[in-house]
This record gives sequence, structure tokens and C-alpha cells, in this order.
Amino acid sequence: MTLIDRFTADYGAVKKIDAFAFLKYLADNPDASRKHGKVVLVTADTPLKASRGEGKTTTTIALIDALRSRGVDAAAVLRQPSMGITAAGSKGGASGGGKASLTHPELVDWGLCGEMGAIAAAQNLLVSFAEKAVDEGRLDDILVPRVSEVPSRSLRQITVDRGKGNVPERVVLTPTCELMQIVVLSRSMDEISSRVAAMIAGTKDGRPVVFGDFIDLWRITTILSDAVKPAQTSTLGGSPVYVHGGPFANVSIGIPTLVSVEMACALHDVVVVEAGYGTDAGAQKWLDIACREYGAQWPSAAVVVTRATTWRDDPTLSWRYPFHVRRLEGLGVPTFPLVNLWSGEDDQIDSLRDAARALGFREPVIGNLFRDGGDALAPQLDGFMEALEASTAGDVHADSHKGMPLVEDVTWVAGSAYGVPPERVRPREGFEESLRAAARLVEGVGRDIDDLALVAVKSPATMTDDDSAPEDSRTVTLKKVEVHAGAGLVQVNLTTSLTTPMPKIV
Amino acid sequence: MTLIDRFTADYGAVKKIDAFAFLKYLADNPDASRKHGKVVLVTADTPLKASRGEGKTTTTIALIDALRSRGVDAAAVLRQPSMGITAAGSKGGASGGGKASLTHPELVDWGLCGEMGAIAAAQNLLVSFAEKAVDEGRLDDILVPRVSEVPSRSLRQITVDRGKGNVPERVVLTPTCELMQIVVLSRSMDEISSRVAAMIAGTKDGRPVVFGDFIDLWRITTILSDAVKPAQTSTLGGSPVYVHGGPFANVSIGIPTLVSVEMACALHDVVVVEAGYGTDAGAQKWLDIACREYGAQWPSAAVVVTRATTWRDDPTLSWRYPFHVRRLEGLGVPTFPLVNLWSGEDDQIDSLRDAARALGFREPVIGNLFRDGGDALAPQLDGFMEALEASTAGDVHADSHKGMPLVEDVTWVAGSAYGVPPERVRPREGFEESLRAAARLVEGVGRDIDDLALVAVKSPATMTDDDSAPEDSRTVTLKKVEVHAGAGLVQVNLTTSLTTPMPKIV
Repeated sequence: MTLIDRFTADYGAVKKIDAFAFLKYLADNPDASRKHGKVVLVTADTPLKASRGEGKTTTTIALIDALRSRGVDAAAVLRQPSMGITAAGSKGGASGGGKASLTHPELVDWGLCGEMGAIAAAQNLLVSFAEKAVDEGRLDDILVPRVSEVPSRSLRQITVDRGKGNVPERVVLTPTCELMQIVVLSRSMDEISSRVAAMIAGTKDGRPVVFGDFIDLWRITTILSDAVKPAQTSTLGGSPVYVHGGPFANVSIGIPTLVSVEMACALHDVVVVEAGYGTDAGAQKWLDIACREYGAQWPSAAVVVTRATTWRDDPTLSWRYPFHVRRLEGLGVPTFPLVNLWSGEDDQIDSLRDAARALGFREPVIGNLFRDGGDALAPQLDGFMEALEASTAGDVHADSHKGMPLVEDVTWVAGSAYGVPPERVRPREGFEESLRAAARLVEGVGRDIDDLALVAVKSPATMTDDDSAPEDSRTVTLKKVEVHAGAGLVQVNLTTSLTTPMPKIV
Repeated sequence: MTLIDRFTADYGAVKKIDAFAFLKYLADNPDASRKHGKVVLVTADTPLKASRGEGKTTTTIALIDALRSRGVDAAAVLRQPSMGITAAGSKGGASGGGKASLTHPELVDWGLCGEMGAIAAAQNLLVSFAEKAVDEGRLDDILVPRVSEVPSRSLRQITVDRGKGNVPERVVLTPTCELMQIVVLSRSMDEISSRVAAMIAGTKDGRPVVFGDFIDLWRITTILSDAVKPAQTSTLGGSPVYVHGGPFANVSIGIPTLVSVEMACALHDVVVVEAGYGTDAGAQKWLDIACREYGAQWPSAAVVVTRATTWRDDPTLSWRYPFHVRRLEGLGVPTFPLVNLWSGEDDQIDSLRDAARALGFREPVIGNLFRDGGDALAPQLDGFMEALEASTAGDVHADSHKGMPLVEDVTWVAGSAYGVPPERVRPREGFEESLRAAARLVEGVGRDIDDLALVAVKSPATMTDDDSAPEDSRTVTLKKVEVHAGAGLVQVNLTTSLTTPMPKIV
């Protein structure tokens, strides 16, 4: 029995690992045998539509199959997709496909790893206790939304206690809530407990009230007992895949849990981490939130996935892909373009290589991953493996932005991640007021809004108010501010586009 | 590897069994080695309050520990308690206690066996699709409630699509919904699929519309993939316990799933099944719904649990316990009183035996199960084991009431299960109209309301409108009718008492 076996239990077709206990063991036993894996970030071009994926998960699966076939101990860390969206039929599965598939895709697509339901139950229980607090006069309003994994536009604005208190509430999808963020960012149950205690439940006479003032935290943490354990499954090729956490990348932090990545890095030499949507979304959040503010590992390499069409076809949008690739290279991260071919596109390979060369990219990796899986990639990985081996980017300790005034921080992200300079980052009417109210709320619990980590909330399909506009007229509009004090985050809604431009689901 | 091992997988600290596949295997292989276990029903006196349990679960656990210590291959089947109620703190755990405990009570109390969340997600997805159908003009209203495992009085009446459609809805606790009933009563995924298709989603121009008309059923059944598998755990004494399904016994059918009991009967010689609340609730539902209408096994023996105080202290209520014991004996089921002593009550043993003797009961089994567990029972089981061994009650095929006019059926239950004759079973204003509307609805899908099985919905703490009244003036008021066409059930609310007299939870 290996060390990790002591912390692993079967759960039907997956295993779950008590990552908290495993990492604590390693911390308490510094001489224990362990690896020091490097993180490879898989990200993508900004998609044309939120519902049209570039193939990041398929790439992640094919990549680890390919690396393992070349003798590298590689594993992947994926997020748990939103079961409700799969069930409702709005998006296909989010677990690869064809030859680059998981052994049990239904487990991932249909939420059978279990943590979504537990997180939903825990967040809804918090709201129930808040409703009771309203009845008891302890709260005037409720600032925490109910959640459901099952989507329904009708749930966005609801009234509870109809006919009596008529309390307005809203229901959001589970992958967007603060408790999901807390589970993603915490490294122990004690930390989860403290963060839940620090969540702002609502206000009383204008002053914020935190959950720690009136609930028994063990009720929440007990519900999460199994939810905090990463699930382990595998690709059809037999490569290990860990699945844990599922925040969306447009309206939340878009990364799997920190402990699942750290656990994987203790067990494997290369850990491929998939962050959601485009480089301006999940990747930006891994770098600027997880790494800068929460101690995660800077990537030793990055793969930016695109379809043959996404990055080239629309001349007004074709600036985005090179912008992403160059930005990551500029951060010291060896960055590899990966073009995921659909059927009938094999004849484009030469023109794709020419285009990449003209843009000064590293030699792109190109293949039909659905059809050929890891076999499409393995022969093309020499440059990647060399660069990864030599990379010291994982030692980077990027500066925290803690204490940086919020607007300055947003402006910094707009510049570094979206290419828009400060003079074209503009508040919309209502923004200043929203910011002031948020700052007052945080002050009311004795904290400073500038100490919270910034989460950019915006459409997945656009980086600025209009990506088709000429470079020197692109703008970023600031819309509103919302704090998630328990998670330690401040969410700022950006750009005039809809944040969630999904087709009507249900 | 035994036969059952082929259908069993570890799930962390429990195992889950693919009961559908196991029972199908047995049906296809009639020569396969299997047992033919007898069902023992554990029920109780009508409680004084819904929140004050008599100790049925503790008894069930102690009983199988005691039987196994005497060489009998016994196992228990329990329901999954409502995690939300445990988490919210309104009721202690529902998994025994002291020496009569499960190895992992938190798994049962905190819903970590998983099916509640899946059933909730599936039922909520049905409602989401119904809301979409309303938007599309396919439905005028929605007759299926949303569900939550997390209780909150504020959720009983809500409005969705606030500010636009303003659609009234309600949220009920997951253990009370029709989909839970379907999971409890179905013996295959195909059956679940057919029943979900037959659920009435709402009406259009006054005519009922079933889900089968407009949803893809595989979306629902896939969510339920693991929920249909009974969980297996054990007592501290090492006795096998199966946990599956959790409908409440006051507002629903109060029994564990039929397949979990049938599976257990194929594996063990004695299967102790716990039904919820008193003999007038869960036991009545096992006998008159599960056995008469759905092919379940008539009990070979019954144990009626009471505390030392419940059955004797209030002279106006002391008729209830003997009524229950005699009724079951009258149905041909050897019935054993079991008095569950609390601390400090040991000195009552003699007077308890005297009282039992005076009432003509079989020799009661008496013990402090929390303190002594199975050891308290084992020396007292001679009579029980003899009667069980000799019992042929399990061969009883009680007549179905299919086709019996609904009011006649309700009257029959009021007489046989509550001791109230037909002339004192009275409709309240609005009942007739409710019945007509329900009958019309069912007719609209080509079925007859009299063919549905009757579920009596009433307070757990009273059998009649006033149990303290003299026998010749006790009445049962009929309040309203609601059909669960998918499950094949018709629910009739009875008595003037509140159906759910729980203290305010959250």
C-alpha cells in the first residue's frame, strides 16, 4: 500500500482522496517521499460563443495520454462540470470525447462525484438560517443567494414566504456561489469553517452581519465532509485524472480546487490543470488570484487551445489569440499553441503552421484529438517536453495585489489581460455608488475592500466592450461591485456584454 | 467472490449495491443460490409529538444484533433520514444511539449515501422543464413542486420569475415528493422512466399534460443512476444494514424502497424493515400500499415499539397502543410489544409486564436499548424466534383495493387502521370539490382515480380528529385530494390536525 492509498477510498467507479489529511501528513512529515510536480496550464482562445468550446478538456486528456506514452508521469486536474447544464441539454458533456475520453464521462458530466449537491445543500442551509434570522429580527435582508444545480431562468428572481413576508431572493447556479469559491480556495476544514463564519449573511440597520454570529458552523462543515475530497478517475488511455470543484470562469474563478492541484503535484511530475473559458478568464484567474493571492504554483508551461477557425477567420477578432500567447510568454511561461482540428480540417495543417510562424509563436501542436487522442500529440511534443523540463517558471512568486486600490487593480487587469489602457477603462453610471456601498459593507466587518482579491466577472466571449473595434478604441466598462467576504474576494462586473450569454436553457 | 459481490461497489465508508441488476439476475437465473428471507416489520405506538421518537431505529439495530448473536442471519432495512432536518438541528440523528448504533451514523444522518441530492436534482429539473413549457405556451400552470432537502418555512409558498411571469410555486422537502415515491416503488430503471413519463406536469386549457409529452426521460434517469442503488452499512455489532429511500410517513409512504427489502430477503433469513412514525402511519402504508398494491411481502412478525410512558401515562390516549397490537395480530401477524426504557426506568419493568399481561399481549420485550443494545434483547427472544420460525404470514396475498371507490377506500382505512366507523368519517367543506377535480385530472390522462393506491396524509401524532375523545365520538375529517399519477398514488389529507406539526425548523 502506497502512502496515498491510506487516504484513498473507492466510491463506486471513482475513488475519493482525503486531500486535506494527505497534505497535512506531508506537512507534518517533511521527509516523506513525495514528488514536486510542475503545473501546466491548459487554457484557450476567447471563444466565439460561450456554448462553443475550443476543446480544452479533450486537449487535457489527450495531452496527459501523450506525455505518459512518452514516459512522463503526468496527470490532469479538471473541474466538475455543471450537471444541471448537461442534464438540461444546453451543452454537450464537458469531459472530452472520442479517443480523448474519460473512462466514465457520465460521472463527470452528471455530477456523480457528489460535491455539487453537498455544496448546494450547505449554501441553501445558510440561506435558510438567514431567513430564520430575518424572522427573528436579527437581519433586515439576505445578501446570500440560494443555489440550484438545475438551471431555470425563472429562478433568477424569486419571492419567498409568499403572502406573508414576501422576501425577495434569487437563485443562482451552484458553480457560481461563494461557498463553491470557499471550497476551491481552502486548504483545511478549519479554513472552510472560518471562511463560512466570515461570509456576510445580510445587514441589520445598515450594518453587515456575518454567519459566524448566529450559526453553528459544524452543521455546514459536516455536510461538506465528502465534498472536500477530490475524485480520481482516469482516461481511456489509463492516465490519472482528478476532478474537484467547479466554479464557472465567467462569473467566478474558473479553476479546480487548490488542494487537488497540490495533491496531484505531490504524486506526479507534471500536473496539467484546465482553467475555464479563454486565457482572459480562467487562466487570468489562476495567475492573478490563485497564484498571486492564494499560494498556488505559477505554471511551468501553458497550452493555449484553439480550433482551426476560432483564431483566424474573423479579421476583427484575430488579434485575440496572439495577444494571449504573447502575454503568457511575456510572463515567463513557455506557451504552446495547440490547434484542435475538427473533421475535414486536416488539409489546413500547413497553413496553420505558416500562420503560427508568421506570428512568431513556438511551433504549434496540431491534431484531431477526438479522432486520434494522445496519438495525435505524442510525436509533436519534443519542444514542449524540453521547454517544460528546463522551465523554472514554477518558482515564480508573483506579487500580491493586496492593498492595491480596487479600481487600480481592475485597471491593471484590463491592461495586462485585455490590452486596454487605463484611460479607456470607464465606470458606468452606478458603478461608483456600487463600489462605495461594497466598501462600506466590508468596512462594517472590520476589513478593507482593497485587501480582497479581484474577480473579473464578464462575458466569456469578449474581453472588452467590443473586441471587433480597432485596438485604439476598445474600452472596458465597469458596472458593479459585489463582495464575497468569506472567500476573500471582490467581484467586479465588466464590459457592456451580458455576463452569461448562454442560450435559454430551461 | 459471492454473487452479491458482483453487484456491490465501495462508496467510501459504505457500499452500494446495484439492486436492479441483482434482482434481474435472480429472475433470469431461477436456479441461482438465494435465500427467502422473512420480513419483520418494526413499527411503534402513535407518538405524542412528531419530534419525539419511540426508538424504532434503535430497536431495529438492537434487534438484528440480538438475532445474529443467537445465530439468526438477520439484517435491517432503514430509510435515509432527512439530512436537512438533522443539519438544521430540529431533530437528533435518526440512526439509533448508544450501544445500538451504526458504525457511521453521520453517513445516514447527513445524507452522505447520496440519493436525496440526486432525487432533488431530478425533481427540480422536471420543474425547470415545466417552467420552460409554461414560457412556450405548452402549460398554463405547474402542478409539481420544487424540492429542497434543506427546510425553510419561507419556501412553502414562493413566486418564480419575479417581476415578469410571477409564477406561484411551492417548495417541499425532498422526502415528500412524487419522484421519491417513484424511486421507492419501482423495480427497474425502465419502470422509473415510465412512471416519470406519467407524472402530471400541469394543465393546458384545463387538460392535464404529462411529462412524457415533452421531456427526454433519459435526462432524469441518468441523474438517478446511483440513487437507485441501496447503500450497505453496519451496526457497531457488525450486523448488516441497508439504507435506501426516505419518504416521510405522515405526508408520504414512510417505507424504504421495495427493491432494498427484496434484495435483503434474497441475502438473509430475516429482514427487519422499519416503517416510519406509528402503526397508523408507516406500518399501515407497508401493509395496505406496498403489500396490497405493489407486491411487497406481508410481514411474518411485527414489533411495536413504545417508550415506558407513551402507551400508559395519558388515560385518554392509552387505547392506541393496544389497538395497534391487536390490529396487527388480527391481520395474522405475530405481534410483539417492545418497551424501550429510558434511563431511570428499569424499576418499571414489573409493572410494564403486568400491564401487558392484563391487555392480553404476548410477553413484551423490555430493555434499555441505548444502554445495553442487542444484549438487552437477546435473552428475551425465545418466543419471538419461535413465532417467527413458525409464521406463514409471509405467504399472505392481501387483496388489492384497485377499483374500490376512493371514499370507500378511505373509510376502510379509517375503520381498520384508526378504529373509526364509516358514519363518523366526514368530508369537510371543499373535499368533494377537491375529489372531483382530482378525478377529472386523472380521467384526462385516461385513467381512473379509483385505480390509484390510497396514501393517507395526516399528522403523525394523531389517528383521528381528537384521539382523546371517547371512542364513540372520535371522527375522521376528509380535507382534500391530490394525485401522484406517476407513482400511481392518490393522497388524501385527513383529520383536523396539522399534517406537519414540527416545531419551526428554520
